[in-house]
Amino acid sequence: MRIAELSERSGVPIPTIKYYLREGLLPRGEATGRNQARYGNEHLSRLRLVRALTTVGGLSVATVREVLAEVGEPGVGLHSKLGLVMRRLPLVGDDIEPREEDRERARAFVTRRDWFFYPDHPALEALAVVLAGHREAGHPVTEADLDRYAESAEQIARVDLDRISGLPEAEDVLEGAVIKTVLGDTLLAVLRRLAQVDESAERNLDEAGRRAAREG
Amino acid sequence: MRIAELSERSGVPIPTIKYYLREGLLPRGEATGRNQARYGNEHLSRLRLVRALTTVGGLSVATVREVLAEVGEPGVGLHSKLGLVMRRLPLVGDDIEPREEDRERARAFVTRRDWFFYPDHPALEALAVVLAGHREAGHPVTEADLDRYAESAEQIARVDLDRISGLPEAEDVLEGAVIKTVLGDTLLAVLRRLAQVDESAERNLDEAGRRAAREG
Repeated sequence: MRIAELSERSGVPIPTIKYYLREGLLPRGEATGRNQARYGNEHLSRLRLVRALTTVGGLSVATVREVLAEVGEPGVGLHSKLGLVMRRLPLVGDDIEPREEDRERARAFVTRRDWFFYPDHPALEALAVVLAGHREAGHPVTEADLDRYAESAEQIARVDLDRISGLPEAEDVLEGAVIKTVLGDTLLAVLRRLAQVDESAERNLDEAGRRAAREG
Repeated sequence: MRIAELSERSGVPIPTIKYYLREGLLPRGEATGRNQARYGNEHLSRLRLVRALTTVGGLSVATVREVLAEVGEPGVGLHSKLGLVMRRLPLVGDDIEPREEDRERARAFVTRRDWFFYPDHPALEALAVVLAGHREAGHPVTEADLDRYAESAEQIARVDLDRISGLPEAEDVLEGAVIKTVLGDTLLAVLRRLAQVDESAERNLDEAGRRAAREG
């Protein structure tokens, strides 16, 4: 495909693609003329990865170059590649303006799960924002995945409520809730990262691979 | 108790306590002399709540004053109080310097769970940081709670890995992993908030209370 089609299919503007080419983040296409080149699906994949790392991941161009170099080393398996990328990621993403359809989906979701909710709760708007973020990044969340995550969230909320129940004063409960909720978000994000490493090793590495990966 | 004991038991310096008194965040004690007052356990509870809201919660003094006024309205049940406080909270906490004991506990934990891990993975240090945060806030995480959260994290990691498996190119997998991990942290934090509201309503409200709470 030509650069115009690469831009259209990736959603990345042509000047940005040219910048990535100059910076070496995207390999040159096959030259077909003085000022023309042809790009393949591997360019499209790379372009989407670079965009994810810079926008959602918040990485600098220099860091992306480093990550790509590490990932591109010969003989690096998928599990290790995942590890190399994931450890560079921040623990939270940025905000995006949701559309009305995202807000409707958020409301429909909590209604379908039969969750008690307040229509003006900021978490409902935050759910619309994060659904919009997935949609705009070209990785919409399916209802099935949302349900699987919601089941985990329900389990977690039971632990959360157990942890603050039985405290003597209402204000003790509130203090515990503040600390355990805010620090708990980070705790869960961190445990998720560690569990991902384990799950990825489980799926992608045999015993020898585990030993080799561990020894770096 | 005197202000000195209040300071010692809460860990809040006396000048800060005096500032909270002047700002009306902490009610005056019972006057026992020209410049002396006696404080009770309700002062200690309130002080710990104010500190949690300002430090971990990151709220301004003005916002804390608002929250306390709302929470202090007569006839507001615990479920509604929780809701009033929780909706003001940011979705992530700040960092803290862990001690060696926190790092050891983090390593011992992943070892005990038999998780595959890299000793230099940043999530392991992040786990130590968040354990330190709970400890310093006076709400250490028990091993039992950590285990219950870890089970949820394992479930979530299985969903995560399912969501990125089967993509055609390694770089597609990586791009999906970046987007789904970073946005997924927010997604999970948001679902957790919504599930907490539901769980708290389940535990603390009857049918009439649910109707009343929903109508605000």
